[in-house]
Amino acid sequence: MRTLLALAALTLATPAFADALVDNVNGITLDKDGKVVRFNAILLTPDGKVIRLLQSGDKRPAQLDWRADEKGKVLLPGFVDAHGHVMGLGMGALALDLSDTTSLAQATAKIAAYAAANPDKKWILGRGWNQEKWGLGRFPTAADIDAVVADRPVWLERVDGHASWANSAAMKAAGLNAKSISPPGGRIEKAAGGVPSGVLVDAAQALVGKVVPQPLPKELDVAVLKAQEILLSYGVTAAADMGTSLDDWLSYRRLGDMGALRVRIMAYGDGVETAVRVGGSGPTPWLYKDRLRMGGVKLYADGALGSRGAWLKAPYSDAAGETGLGFMTDDVIRNRMVRASMDGYQIAVHAIGDKANAQVLDAIEELQGTFKGDRRWRIEHAQIVDPIDLPRFGKLGVIASMQPVHQTSDMHMAEARLGPNRLAGAYAWKSMLTNGAPLVFGTDFPVESPDPWAGWAAAFTRQDKDGQPFGGWRPEEAVTREAAWKAYTMDAAWAGFAEDKFGRLAPGQRADFIIVDRDPLLASPAELRSMKVEQTWVGGEKVWIRK
Amino acid sequence: MRTLLALAALTLATPAFADALVDNVNGITLDKDGKVVRFNAILLTPDGKVIRLLQSGDKRPAQLDWRADEKGKVLLPGFVDAHGHVMGLGMGALALDLSDTTSLAQATAKIAAYAAANPDKKWILGRGWNQEKWGLGRFPTAADIDAVVADRPVWLERVDGHASWANSAAMKAAGLNAKSISPPGGRIEKAAGGVPSGVLVDAAQALVGKVVPQPLPKELDVAVLKAQEILLSYGVTAAADMGTSLDDWLSYRRLGDMGALRVRIMAYGDGVETAVRVGGSGPTPWLYKDRLRMGGVKLYADGALGSRGAWLKAPYSDAAGETGLGFMTDDVIRNRMVRASMDGYQIAVHAIGDKANAQVLDAIEELQGTFKGDRRWRIEHAQIVDPIDLPRFGKLGVIASMQPVHQTSDMHMAEARLGPNRLAGAYAWKSMLTNGAPLVFGTDFPVESPDPWAGWAAAFTRQDKDGQPFGGWRPEEAVTREAAWKAYTMDAAWAGFAEDKFGRLAPGQRADFIIVDRDPLLASPAELRSMKVEQTWVGGEKVWIRK
Repeated sequence: MRTLLALAALTLATPAFADALVDNVNGITLDKDGKVVRFNAILLTPDGKVIRLLQSGDKRPAQLDWRADEKGKVLLPGFVDAHGHVMGLGMGALALDLSDTTSLAQATAKIAAYAAANPDKKWILGRGWNQEKWGLGRFPTAADIDAVVADRPVWLERVDGHASWANSAAMKAAGLNAKSISPPGGRIEKAAGGVPSGVLVDAAQALVGKVVPQPLPKELDVAVLKAQEILLSYGVTAAADMGTSLDDWLSYRRLGDMGALRVRIMAYGDGVETAVRVGGSGPTPWLYKDRLRMGGVKLYADGALGSRGAWLKAPYSDAAGETGLGFMTDDVIRNRMVRASMDGYQIAVHAIGDKANAQVLDAIEELQGTFKGDRRWRIEHAQIVDPIDLPRFGKLGVIASMQPVHQTSDMHMAEARLGPNRLAGAYAWKSMLTNGAPLVFGTDFPVESPDPWAGWAAAFTRQDKDGQPFGGWRPEEAVTREAAWKAYTMDAAWAGFAEDKFGRLAPGQRADFIIVDRDPLLASPAELRSMKVEQTWVGGEKVWIRK
Repeated sequence: MRTLLALAALTLATPAFADALVDNVNGITLDKDGKVVRFNAILLTPDGKVIRLLQSGDKRPAQLDWRADEKGKVLLPGFVDAHGHVMGLGMGALALDLSDTTSLAQATAKIAAYAAANPDKKWILGRGWNQEKWGLGRFPTAADIDAVVADRPVWLERVDGHASWANSAAMKAAGLNAKSISPPGGRIEKAAGGVPSGVLVDAAQALVGKVVPQPLPKELDVAVLKAQEILLSYGVTAAADMGTSLDDWLSYRRLGDMGALRVRIMAYGDGVETAVRVGGSGPTPWLYKDRLRMGGVKLYADGALGSRGAWLKAPYSDAAGETGLGFMTDDVIRNRMVRASMDGYQIAVHAIGDKANAQVLDAIEELQGTFKGDRRWRIEHAQIVDPIDLPRFGKLGVIASMQPVHQTSDMHMAEARLGPNRLAGAYAWKSMLTNGAPLVFGTDFPVESPDPWAGWAAAFTRQDKDGQPFGGWRPEEAVTREAAWKAYTMDAAWAGFAEDKFGRLAPGQRADFIIVDRDPLLASPAELRSMKVEQTWVGGEKVWIRK
């Protein structure tokens, strides 16, 4: 027994004395000042941290635990998505996906096929529809689904998560009828006679949501593993999880405990209570070798633009009198921010409309005198900002956490919602930098694909995947290729208090990197969009390989 | 940077190559067969596991990381409490404690003093009262408290947790009045005119409990640390936590994450949902070097004897027509046991009365054909068992998880409740062993003190701390001193699937041990009860010292 134990100790300890080398790469990273650095090899600790970057001429260590020869391939730091929903990505990938449908008929056909293929599912759940993409000119209705699935509830979330579409069985399960009234912060779409027509906006979604059977914990675990696989396949090695529920957190911990967590998750609790129940008197430590931390709180100041839930200073251009929905009064937002800040949690507030952005900026301005120190207040999306409010981001040091692909997805819709005269502060990435605000990029997956290459290309072109519009949409708000890369890597890590841990390749950082098929700094926008990740490494371990 | 990192790696790794020695002890443990083994030193891995036990003549290793000379002191394995409530112990220790009061007047004086000393507390919370000890002959009333504290709610749990005592302000906060009706599984004690008199039994406690402000997560952490300190001071190094709530669990994890968890906690979720939300598709792994695991589910088949909530086959001798409360129908208990067992969770069911014990045995008998393998079904307390059901524990291999001190605390009350003819299967420890059932011991802290020495002494004497009754209460149910020790250490670990990890001192086991002031195998019962723990070690680290 003695010998066995001594041997086991020896085996565990041995790697601590030999380093490892990823050699012969065309390596590119940013340094701490955001300047491009090229290198030829990475020397790693056995624990998966970077010891140093080597050039071609540098002497390699004589003793190595292992050496990987990458034959001159391009190696980059893993992407850090500053705003996503890990559980949503996984659940969405396992559910009915309508995001590729371009007409209502296509959508209903897909619903019918999915229901037929899943006879055991008691509820048909899905997401991704967008009546704007269908050119429908109206919300879809329950009757549209009833025509293909009437035997059980169907419940389908809109692409932006701010509205959902039910069939009659789902509305019946929820007890919805002509007498049902819209809850505060939400709206039941109604047909003639006040009958709910099938779409529930924002807070009204909970009316059906509360009767949907909750997924089992083991189903959550499958979803996280699925999300992780998707993220790694795109080269995303870390993500801010914007609105982690307690059950999401418990699932992340289960995977961490069993050593199955690969992607790094910077968790922001879905409200103050979740963060505090998890972290107690402050953020959790970094867990599982910097793979998980509950560091902050996600709050919502308003809804989304597509569903006209974004809170505007002046009415929507395409809906007279409507200004969207503010989710919190000024008192409530301050109260929540104070409760979270008192215990040192970071605050990240979703704000899409100009009114919502102003409300959050006002609250931060008022509170930052009380809560001093390195707070890194975040506004998520910061999509439509009144130009007079733009300089306040820089002045207050508020992080603008934005999603380049939202601009290309939304540009026509935004023009309709806002009219031409309110676009000056819309998707205003360059203005954020000019004003001195920290700018970080993400995708808002699963609202958009977590593909960072599309976002990177959009960021410096202001064009969609078809190169539209010619010259870019309000191209004065494009940022440089390098600035976009920085916002998608090291600055997104910094926004999650992780700048000492990951986000670039440098001594002491976790060795999170990807091997890709070409040099992204020399690629055309189209080439960048079609970039193939061949390998993804997290913490010095190869965790994903293209097959 | 390179040098710094290499140095750091070296520092971390060094201990892995030298063992440690706790030398010159009068060491006593049980071996795997439960036989007493004596030794003179323990050789430890740097990770805090036992490499082997050494005798005086055995050669000591030349190279040691450290050596502790204990100068011939007695060293024993740490105790394992098979049934306690960690959070309850800590919260109780921080709240008003009425367990030492011997009259109602003493209790109300203590309530008044505590309220005066704690002017900021919005609610006065406490526990530990026992109208039997007061010789009151009735439950206390709200008016008894109102006379000393009327300005804010007072809410005091009975010693067994199966009843609580409110003042009028607490009942008002809960909206209780003459129209309030007792909920299923509970009883509102009523005075003339149907007015609630102040005591709420079993499920009725929730009527007030639900309006008591929840403790903050950071308050929970303080309570766990307090509980841990108390347990370590008695030499208890591991405990089964019988009914871990989700927030309890989150607190244990916070302490584990920050390296502050010392005591080993075998957690049983407070219902199937908690266990499954935490563990997902099965028990968690052992976390924090075997200091925490969610391994099972705690269910309640009935209440307690003191409050006449224990479920009896025939009416109480001192309350005509009353047979106590069964908490679950036969269908419900089976359903819950099936749901937990399907995912591999262990089942531990609280059963005090003979009817409740029979119900659980019936359910296990029916289910064990379906759920094969090493299930280790547990009945907690198994206090009053119909003699015809006693052999079923052995036949079905059901663990009898019992608390010796309950017998000495309850003996007179039990005689009153049951009459002389129903005591044959009461606190029947020896019969459990004779029938071949696994017997494990604990204290049910904070219902009783977590002091294992009192329990150990009671187990082989059937006498209380005053040596009463002479010759012991039904002494034929006493077990031997060694059998009691086994039930309090290695078998209690086994009952939590931890026999390969702790519970005795042997190669491969975690080095959890205590240094005490005399040899417990040679001590008189009175000496055993007054045993002083001088040091407590967990995982090879000294974590508590008597000051």
